[in-house]
Amino acid sequence: MENLSKIQSIPKGTTDYYGNDARLRDEIISRLTKVYEKYGFEALYTPIIENAEVFKGHHGEGEKLLFKFSDKKGEEYVLKYDSTVPLARVVSMHNDIPLPYKRYQFQQSFRDDEIDKGHYREFIQCDGDIVGTESLSSDAEFIMISHEGLQSLGFDDFTIRINHRKLIKGIADLANYTTKEQILSIQRAIDIADKINKGSIDDIRSELLKANIEKKIVDIIIELVEIANKNSVRKSLDEIKYYFKNSSANGVQGATELKEIISYVPENMLDNVKVDFTLARGADYYTGFILEGIINNVKLGAVLGGGRYDDLVDAFGGGNVPAVGMAFGLERIIVSLKELGLDRNLIDSSKTKMLVYASPSNKASAIKLATHLRKNYNVSLIFNTDVPSDRLLEYCRYNNISELVIPMENLSYTLQSVDELERRGIIWTRKRD
Amino acid sequence: MENLSKIQSIPKGTTDYYGNDARLRDEIISRLTKVYEKYGFEALYTPIIENAEVFKGHHGEGEKLLFKFSDKKGEEYVLKYDSTVPLARVVSMHNDIPLPYKRYQFQQSFRDDEIDKGHYREFIQCDGDIVGTESLSSDAEFIMISHEGLQSLGFDDFTIRINHRKLIKGIADLANYTTKEQILSIQRAIDIADKINKGSIDDIRSELLKANIEKKIVDIIIELVEIANKNSVRKSLDEIKYYFKNSSANGVQGATELKEIISYVPENMLDNVKVDFTLARGADYYTGFILEGIINNVKLGAVLGGGRYDDLVDAFGGGNVPAVGMAFGLERIIVSLKELGLDRNLIDSSKTKMLVYASPSNKASAIKLATHLRKNYNVSLIFNTDVPSDRLLEYCRYNNISELVIPMENLSYTLQSVDELERRGIIWTRKRD
Repeated sequence: MENLSKIQSIPKGTTDYYGNDARLRDEIISRLTKVYEKYGFEALYTPIIENAEVFKGHHGEGEKLLFKFSDKKGEEYVLKYDSTVPLARVVSMHNDIPLPYKRYQFQQSFRDDEIDKGHYREFIQCDGDIVGTESLSSDAEFIMISHEGLQSLGFDDFTIRINHRKLIKGIADLANYTTKEQILSIQRAIDIADKINKGSIDDIRSELLKANIEKKIVDIIIELVEIANKNSVRKSLDEIKYYFKNSSANGVQGATELKEIISYVPENMLDNVKVDFTLARGADYYTGFILEGIINNVKLGAVLGGGRYDDLVDAFGGGNVPAVGMAFGLERIIVSLKELGLDRNLIDSSKTKMLVYASPSNKASAIKLATHLRKNYNVSLIFNTDVPSDRLLEYCRYNNISELVIPMENLSYTLQSVDELERRGIIWTRKRD
Repeated sequence: MENLSKIQSIPKGTTDYYGNDARLRDEIISRLTKVYEKYGFEALYTPIIENAEVFKGHHGEGEKLLFKFSDKKGEEYVLKYDSTVPLARVVSMHNDIPLPYKRYQFQQSFRDDEIDKGHYREFIQCDGDIVGTESLSSDAEFIMISHEGLQSLGFDDFTIRINHRKLIKGIADLANYTTKEQILSIQRAIDIADKINKGSIDDIRSELLKANIEKKIVDIIIELVEIANKNSVRKSLDEIKYYFKNSSANGVQGATELKEIISYVPENMLDNVKVDFTLARGADYYTGFILEGIINNVKLGAVLGGGRYDDLVDAFGGGNVPAVGMAFGLERIIVSLKELGLDRNLIDSSKTKMLVYASPSNKASAIKLATHLRKNYNVSLIFNTDVPSDRLLEYCRYNNISELVIPMENLSYTLQSVDELERRGIIWTRKRD
């Protein structure tokens, strides 16, 4: 036998989902699917394995986290790092897809990353994207989908943080940073600082300085953060626009676009939306609006994120095709639901079934009875030699069984509620062995 | 820009599913899920990445097809080759799962294999297994699930081939083969012959001889094949039992077990069931009953397969836990449906949606209208600047849009059936540009 510790374990940062965890996962995915479908999105599935070239040059530092391997013939592959890059590949490859293309894609991504709370190496992202329109109403749809998605899962206290790459450019303008590399360096530094800490103004300042952002840049960011902190989202965008008025056309344009975007979002959703200058998002490919969702009171980082990326499809030879999108992170959503005790509601809404519980001496008629009941119900069949009666309650609970079916003669049977049997103390009594 | 041929392609033997292909995939998975749930199965998800040790020693020659790689720290991993081995790992690792454990698992598997029609390197298997019972009624359930699964997809002309590892041992007994290696060599040779050809008695004979099976073994197999060919499944099992009566206890036991198994299967399903001595199944871990499903008149190999494997969980340190299971192959099912023209029925049963089609000058009220309609319907929103009216029908058809919504003043709108607009020749007229 192989080393037991290796064959009885899974790689760090990966997960087995079974029992209630599988039910929770299915329920989350089903609810988020419904939200995307409500907004007119279509399903897409791409391979787990991509040609290594597909993921070159789109994720900055993230590229170091790719899992790489080769086939027998020496072709180089990677495990998909996200679902946005494969989408750009799909749109450039399959020109039978009419644009705008609204697709959702719920699949694993893989990163050879350090493991900690809320960080995984194999994880599910629930992506949605609209490819082929510049309309800012599309950007707005993702604020609405974020809001509706989190609410459909039972969250009520969350914040959708928004920012704009042109506002970051505005900051660069104020500091006379001009090259693409300089602007990227600000974005990445904010991103690093952002990942480490969400806190007070002082925390933000010290994290930004630690991330080697020049003091003059840090001062501008802090000033803008304070504007956003003390105003509603609508009001703060007016003030930010004014702030950039005579110094940066980029800054003004960023604020103007965000103003248009939120104008399409229903008023009741805006309470949860906040402009946040410490939001950068890691990917290099974003070009405009960016967003992120956090569950307040759960220290875990973003449970969703995304933005506009107007140049990515072109990088795959697909022509000048604007795009915007987002993804919910399944694993972090699960951690958040559990931490807030909201998981039970979702699990309880999953399907129950009947259990035909029989003696093996009665096998032929038990299976006939199960077959009969399956015309209308979900029915499991087990024998009392496999599950003794003193383990039956545990078995029913684990398997979400609501009704117990005891076969009698001639295909007749008694049907009993498991809740009722437990209440009356019947099925958990340990019998004599 | 990277080499276009690499970034506009996917690895050989992998697939992008979009549009109708994604709808077809979703519909197949939904129907097969319902069948498993009807039989009381629970969802399980395991990681795509497994420790390399997990897949050592369970797949014979198949082990050469593993995709292998390492993480930054040098830990060795493989991409999962099937979902049966991970199930055995799960049961031995998580002893909070009460047995019998009935789980379904619809996930990718990966094999660095030669590509041809119906062979993939990344493919979805729709597995179901029952772990923790010796009861042959469980084996019978998989014949029923096979039958019901294929029927639910619209197939009517199919054959469920069954065999038993003890019948193969019976053949070895007749030939005085005694070692485990000798028996395995018969199984593997049959498996190779089986994969190459399903044909006449002469074809079978020549394939078996080509696979280096001794002539005396080939003669026995041919004799048994002829018994099975000319009788109903029930009758042929009686004759096979008689055939082994004085020469092999294994053979008698194999036939007796198969007889018990089919006794639990409803009579109307038995017409599609056939004993087949050329059926071996590749995996080394099967110990008893094996099955395979083929769609008659589609030259493609099995669309489902499985069997009993009573020793696999023990190989993971999980103790002596008997198990039986099967998997539908999604990709081969799709090819078969398309070849028989049955795919359209499944696609047509997928969800439709509305499309709000607006002028951008009307953006705010269009998005309000879409938001309103989304309270009850799935609604997409696009602008006539993105999709000109002469492309609108194509767009509607591609996106399964059944109703067109044209915004008017004050949130009023006209709603029109796309079918009706097409019939009346309205939306496919190419307008002046």
